[in-house]
Amino acid sequence: MTNALYPSDRLARAARAAGAAGLDALLVTPGADLRYLTGYDALPLERLTCLVLRSDGTATLVVPALERARAESSPAGALGIEIVGWGETEDPYAITAALVGRAEKVGLSDRTWVLHGLRWRDALPGVRHELAGTALRELRMRKTPEEVAALRDAARIIDGVQDEIRTWRLAGRTERAVGRDIADAIVNGGNVTVNFVIVGSGPNGASPHHDLSDRVIERGDAVVFDIGGTTPDGYCSDITRTYVVGEVTDGFDKLYAVLQDAQARACEAVRPGITAEALDAVARDVITEAGLGEFFIHRTGHGIGLEEHEEPYIVSGNAEPLAPGMAFSIEPGIYLPGRHGARIEDIVVCTEDGGERLNLVTRDLVVLEA
Amino acid sequence: MTNALYPSDRLARAARAAGAAGLDALLVTPGADLRYLTGYDALPLERLTCLVLRSDGTATLVVPALERARAESSPAGALGIEIVGWGETEDPYAITAALVGRAEKVGLSDRTWVLHGLRWRDALPGVRHELAGTALRELRMRKTPEEVAALRDAARIIDGVQDEIRTWRLAGRTERAVGRDIADAIVNGGNVTVNFVIVGSGPNGASPHHDLSDRVIERGDAVVFDIGGTTPDGYCSDITRTYVVGEVTDGFDKLYAVLQDAQARACEAVRPGITAEALDAVARDVITEAGLGEFFIHRTGHGIGLEEHEEPYIVSGNAEPLAPGMAFSIEPGIYLPGRHGARIEDIVVCTEDGGERLNLVTRDLVVLEA
Repeated sequence: MTNALYPSDRLARAARAAGAAGLDALLVTPGADLRYLTGYDALPLERLTCLVLRSDGTATLVVPALERARAESSPAGALGIEIVGWGETEDPYAITAALVGRAEKVGLSDRTWVLHGLRWRDALPGVRHELAGTALRELRMRKTPEEVAALRDAARIIDGVQDEIRTWRLAGRTERAVGRDIADAIVNGGNVTVNFVIVGSGPNGASPHHDLSDRVIERGDAVVFDIGGTTPDGYCSDITRTYVVGEVTDGFDKLYAVLQDAQARACEAVRPGITAEALDAVARDVITEAGLGEFFIHRTGHGIGLEEHEEPYIVSGNAEPLAPGMAFSIEPGIYLPGRHGARIEDIVVCTEDGGERLNLVTRDLVVLEA
Repeated sequence: MTNALYPSDRLARAARAAGAAGLDALLVTPGADLRYLTGYDALPLERLTCLVLRSDGTATLVVPALERARAESSPAGALGIEIVGWGETEDPYAITAALVGRAEKVGLSDRTWVLHGLRWRDALPGVRHELAGTALRELRMRKTPEEVAALRDAARIIDGVQDEIRTWRLAGRTERAVGRDIADAIVNGGNVTVNFVIVGSGPNGASPHHDLSDRVIERGDAVVFDIGGTTPDGYCSDITRTYVVGEVTDGFDKLYAVLQDAQARACEAVRPGITAEALDAVARDVITEAGLGEFFIHRTGHGIGLEEHEEPYIVSGNAEPLAPGMAFSIEPGIYLPGRHGARIEDIVVCTEDGGERLNLVTRDLVVLEA
């Protein structure tokens, strides 16, 4: 059974891209690259699993013998590539090195562990290692219509969780307890994993990657909810909304209005040809003009797909021009240490003539019942 | 607040171990090594987080600026080490390279992504990369009493899930549906993550790392349940039991009796000084003598701690002698393709004079109500 998410010409295109990047072969270990190329969602364990994709198009999937049945029953089994099992006392680095053959440069998938990388340093003496991403990034950044549909599904599910949160009474509950309920809702909505749950209440909202704490949420708090999961297809969601509990305090509404404007303008600026750094500047300029620039302490966004964070990064210094099919977050934030923080985040896909926001939850300031 | 799981002398001991291994510094990225050394459960994202631990004992934790508050509020904040934040347009590889200083060899944490490793190849020209594990393995393999207590807690929780499974009626349900209930029970029992849920029913049990499928469990099936989670302390559990639904068929009880004997004998053989490969042989010999050796297609076990699989590996070719504090699985299995499979797995800790099984669920053949 073939799967529309993994078109049959993808391996051939990746092999050509490897050759064009000067790489004789790609060594692709478990993770997003492997799933992208073969549909195989392999276990990220210490026993080596590796797709050897040579620039001449030869592809072999090397797996631990005890996972051979698992690999064959994955979408990879329908690709017509050879699947080789290695036994517990064999050396999988020697096996994969032999499959690479004569080479000057190989590309390792970006998140391959150095545990494997250093073994290949010995098994492939004199062969220079580069990142497979140099060959794969162009392919992975431009989502197919099927991938965009998968991201749209992921967004719909996580939007539903935000809709649910807005019906909850938060005052008197800890961030941790609320976070547990959110994790349940992420799974119950149809995700296979909870990727992160940030509940940053009151002053904790000023730490963008705040951990769930035992702080009790109070009336008057602004609370940042940044949540994401992965669907059975492997595609990720990521949405942030900031709500106020009971009543607006401490001038939060003025800060929020600036943020909402910045986020909206950046979303409207998405179109083919604008660079990632120019898009970052659109959001940043609005916040800077309001005198709050020093409190927007991170980039505007990151790409998303089979990984929660991937290229393109929407950041100063990245001159990559956006192109149709690219999917990324637009998530400016303003963080006032000791007081409060706010972030609004949507996933946006660049289309032929603009952008499509995948997250559709209201971005207006919502005051929840305390 | 210091935490007994992260003794204050651990960094100093690790620095000495690095020096003894000929490493001028360790570069430790998010994962088990970082948590072991500092208690910081960092986000495994593309922005670099890295502990630079020099063999002279100097330790600096380099984190993305937006995660600085998160790092400071983790147990790492109580260690008295410097925490340096880097901004979105700074180069964290240059920052960490400067902290390393003059060096000939550095040790990278084993699961560091080559994405980072290759950046350090450029930022530290001429410096050879080795695995930090060469320095850290001796420390991490020998669990402290506090770590053993954490593993005992993890085992107690996952034992409770097996106890729950045995009360369920499985016939007529799919592996996938049962797997979902198991995942819920793993979290409800007190774990923060579900690490894996294998439900291998009937012939699917013959694939040791079988994925959850839509196969409907039937009366007469043997079903392999291999499950694990991670507790809030970061310690992992891992237990396998194989139950029969309704009635024993196809001679499964004879196979199971051999397996139970093999697993019991290996557990009884645990003591300081026995090598990992000798322990593997204890289980393997029982199965081979019963004429089933070719169907035991994997090693006998793996170490466990902050990682689901870590050293020591209980496998042919590993001459490591066991020592008090080492914790590992003993999990022989017998897999008859097209018919059924069985595995029994406990976590065992080597003590001063033998072994302690942490999993206490019955290992006798249980026939569940269909």
